[in-house]
This record gives sequence, C-alpha cells and structure tokens, in this order.
Amino acid sequence: MSRPSLLVLAADPPPRLGALTGKADVRFTDEARLAGELPRADALLVWDFTSEAVRRAWPGEGSRPRWVHTPSAGVDRLLCPELAASDTVVTNARGVFEQPIAEYVAALVLAMAKDLPATLQRQRERRWQHRETLPVQGSRAVVAGAGPIGRAVAGALRALGVRTAVVGRTARPGIHGGQDLDLLLTRADWVVCAAPLTEATRGMFDARRFALMQPSARFLNVGRGPLVVEADLVAALRDRTISGAALDVFEQEPLPPDSPVWEAPGLIVSPHMSGDTVGWRDRLSEQFVSLFELWAAGEPLPNVVDKERGYVPMHDHAPD
Amino acid sequence: MSRPSLLVLAADPPPRLGALTGKADVRFTDEARLAGELPRADALLVWDFTSEAVRRAWPGEGSRPRWVHTPSAGVDRLLCPELAASDTVVTNARGVFEQPIAEYVAALVLAMAKDLPATLQRQRERRWQHRETLPVQGSRAVVAGAGPIGRAVAGALRALGVRTAVVGRTARPGIHGGQDLDLLLTRADWVVCAAPLTEATRGMFDARRFALMQPSARFLNVGRGPLVVEADLVAALRDRTISGAALDVFEQEPLPPDSPVWEAPGLIVSPHMSGDTVGWRDRLSEQFVSLFELWAAGEPLPNVVDKERGYVPMHDHAPD
Repeated sequence: MSRPSLLVLAADPPPRLGALTGKADVRFTDEARLAGELPRADALLVWDFTSEAVRRAWPGEGSRPRWVHTPSAGVDRLLCPELAASDTVVTNARGVFEQPIAEYVAALVLAMAKDLPATLQRQRERRWQHRETLPVQGSRAVVAGAGPIGRAVAGALRALGVRTAVVGRTARPGIHGGQDLDLLLTRADWVVCAAPLTEATRGMFDARRFALMQPSARFLNVGRGPLVVEADLVAALRDRTISGAALDVFEQEPLPPDSPVWEAPGLIVSPHMSGDTVGWRDRLSEQFVSLFELWAAGEPLPNVVDKERGYVPMHDHAPD
Repeated sequence: MSRPSLLVLAADPPPRLGALTGKADVRFTDEARLAGELPRADALLVWDFTSEAVRRAWPGEGSRPRWVHTPSAGVDRLLCPELAASDTVVTNARGVFEQPIAEYVAALVLAMAKDLPATLQRQRERRWQHRETLPVQGSRAVVAGAGPIGRAVAGALRALGVRTAVVGRTARPGIHGGQDLDLLLTRADWVVCAAPLTEATRGMFDARRFALMQPSARFLNVGRGPLVVEADLVAALRDRTISGAALDVFEQEPLPPDSPVWEAPGLIVSPHMSGDTVGWRDRLSEQFVSLFELWAAGEPLPNVVDKERGYVPMHDHAPD
C-alpha cells in the first residue's frame, strides 16, 4: 500500500515532521501553488494557519484531501461552503492553546485591576503616585464562548476568586445559553470574548452590547477580531461607556499602524499572542504527528470540527 | 469608670472613628506633639503607620499607653527596644492586606510571564511584534515569609498552577525552614519576598542570593524595602544575573527621583500600593474599632505582635 500524500501549506517547514519519514510522502506548498497541489493530496496540514488560501483554493477542480488539519483553535479562516459540504474531515489544535490563553486573560484582568499600565507610565516619569486598586476576588466575569478555551478562561478566573459565568450557544449544566448574555453583561466587571467566529457570532460585541455594560466594566477579546465591532469599542472607550479593554485579536491583523485602536483610551493592544507560549510550534507539530498516525491507521480522529457550526463540539451528546 | 484616653497619630482623621463616641476620649496628635501626649494616653492608634515618630518618642519620660495599634502588617517602623521590653501590647492589621497583596503578586508574575511591559511599549510605538510568552502553570516559585501574607501569596500562585515553596524562620508542616532558602532559590522561576523586616531579615536578598538564582529568574518584593540590598539588585539586573524584578517597597520611600532603581532593566517599580484596594482605609478603621471594643472590655486581643520576633506569630504552639 502506498504511503499517503501529505501536503503542507508552509512558508517555513514545521519542526518535528521528520517523525513522518517513511509514513507519508510530504510535499510543501505555498499559497500560490496550493490550488494546483490540492488534487494530489490525501491530507492537508495548514501549517500557516493564518492563511486564507485554503478557503480560496478549495472550490476548484479535481479531487480534494480527505483530511485537513489546522494547528489553530479557530477554523474561521479555513472553512468555505464547499469544504463544509464535503466529506473531508477537518481537525483543529484543541488542547494546545487553552491553558496559555486562560493565563493570558488572567494576566490582563489582574493588570487592569491593579492599574499596572498606569504604574509603568509613572515609572517612566519617575513619579511616585500611590493609588488604590481593585480587588479581583469577588468581582464578576462573564465569558462568551463555552468551548475549551472559554471554559479554561473561566477556570483561571474562578481560581482567582472571580464569580464567573460562561455563555455558550445553548444552555446546559454550568453553561448559560445565549439568551442570558445581555443580562449577564449588565452585572459584569469583566467581559471576556472567547467565542468561535461564525456567521452567528460575527460582530456580537457592538455598540448595543457595550451600552449594556457597567461604566466600570472592562472588555477583553481573545477570540477573533471580527467578533467585535472595533469602531464601536473605540467609541465606547472614548465616551467612557466602559472603562477599559484589552484586545489580542483584530478585524485586520497585523493591526494597521494608522488604526485608531492603538490609542483608544484604556485599551491594551497585544499582537495575537495570547496562546503562544514558548514551544508552542513544537507542540502543534507533535499534535499533528499524533493525529496523522491515527488517521493513517484508519482510527477515529479527535478534535473533529463540526463544519456546519464552525467549531469542535464539546461532546457528541451535548450541544455547544 | 472613666473612659479610656485614645491618642491617634494622624495628620488627617481616620474614617469611621465616630463609632467610638462615648466609648473613648479621642485625642489627635501629630509627630511634633506626640512625645508630650504619650504620658496621658491609655491607648495609641498609629494611623499614620509610615511614621517613625513612635519609635523616636517612646523612650521618653512618663507613663506610656498600655496598647499600641498599627493599621499595617509590618511593625518595623514602630518597634524600639524600650517598647519591646515594656508590658505594652502591640497589635497589627492582620487580615486586611493578605488577599490584595496575593492578587498583586499574581498580577506581577503573570505580567512578567506574558511580557506585558514590552507589549505596552510596542503599543505606544504602534508596532506589531508577535512574541512567545512563558507558561505560568508548572513554573516554580519560592516565597520568603511564612506569615499570613506569604501564605496568601503562595495560595494565589498555587491557584495558577505554580509549584510554590514557602520559607519561614523555622520548618513546620508545609513550610520550609530558613536553611532551605538557598537551595530553593537555585530552582525558582519566581522569588517573592514577603518577610517581616527584622534584624534577622534585613538585607536578606543581596548579591550572594541573587547569584544563586537562575538567569531566567524574576524577583519580587512586597515586604519591606530594606529586606533587599537595592544596589545589589540593580547590579544583578544590569549584568543579567537574573532577568527581571518588581519592587513595591524600597529602602527609601517615596523612591527618590534620582534613584537608579527607576530605570534598572527589567524592573517594575510601584509605589507601595500592593495591599491597598479601594476601601482599605475604611477596613483598617473598622478593624481598629473592633479591637478597641475588645480591649475596653478587658477581652484578649487578636493580632498581638511578638515584640521580640517583630511580627505576629502564626499560632501559640507553632513557631513562625
């Protein structure tokens, strides 16, 4: 039996794929050659997971890989109607990013509660100015997104004593349904967006929802940029509808140098790094090798994306 | 029976002392008049707890208050040999600062792990530069100081998954003795100083101890400034003996504008605010009123300082 053909979309080769030597015919491609290579591939690794080339190339002519893996949590850049309607299995990197992102959110919440950006500003000015800070224990958070990242975020916040509600698409034990979101927003000190980007969630944090929040509330987005209407957030910060925010993801990445987001008052901007702890590329590659070995052996794959919903359901018996 | 005379050292009156109306003859004093007022006072509230005036005035002539309360955790600014040798009871603010300081340390640890100061710097420059960050879960901390603040810090770090050792003066279950400190320092990613300032601990973090730490280690001080030899810390940061630090307390406070500490590489400077969450003065005053009512009724007081050791022992049966 011939070795399966593995196509890797990668400008720079991933680490540790040598583990597949003898098990796969590995071919590398770039965005320009992707469409021509797809018909010959049994499996596709979208190593350059920020690329939207797969979505563009997929609807073309010829046969298509039976399996596509993206080493990311979100699959929004990958899915197109033709891929969604096909028999091709799509898997993601569930398991790699949850804990780093949860820690990152905890870092931002604590930094805002303890007024750390202002402390660093005064340090640059050599200015000693005592201020009172906010307690985190006993404050309230709502996390939009009930997938593994949202739940890991909730776990980290609860470990700090934050009373945390998680909102998913549908209610289930321990998870609020989407219909509860607006009411929860009115009570929250911290609003964390960790939802998947789908047509149902695009622009979910807009002027109406910022207006529901308390003037003291802080908003954080570690999901995908288009979950938030950036112009509405900038306006909400400028007119003090809310008192602070932190964005790790943006409508356009990299955030353009002339974007008003950079200087919105009370906003912390970070360059889409919340999940990326030292060694993350190695872990992503090792995870792919493990999945490949299951797939090549005909075993069922974990982390299979529900292509209609646009994310990996939590359990077969519990809707997400 | 006459009402006890309560002397309050305070430039500005504390909140909520109206609760003592009819229960005490309250007199306010400033540093200059303190020595003259001491002989007439049954109790002394050192509301201006950063003052060293009590230590200077105490050895004078005349009778002395039978009870002195400081609304702070540390008593280093207060104690003098004559007060230590007297029958006067000294109490502190145990219970007020633990959780805020624990959160503050967690904020600093996470901010350093996630490279937040560099993120804020790049934001000012409108520069998008992805970096990898450090995981906190599974990292190692050592907390010097086994009092309630040190143990609260350890609790917050453990809640984040940090493997945390606590070092006190003497070993007891769950607490390392001081003889273990040097070995623990060689393994720690995070070294947190939350010890009381006594003659035994003054200057405990010096060039020798920084040299024991890993080049990747970060050092944090939320105890008292003189626990650290500041010049040694600045040198350790400049020559990369360690990779970062955060100081909330200093040899001299406010930190003088010309201090080299302000610009030591990798050092976060904050103005002695780690314990001071919104409402802290109210909580300190309410705590004093509760203690006063016990004292006036002849009941035993909590939070009694061991004046020889220089801090409140954890339990009568367990040395600190």
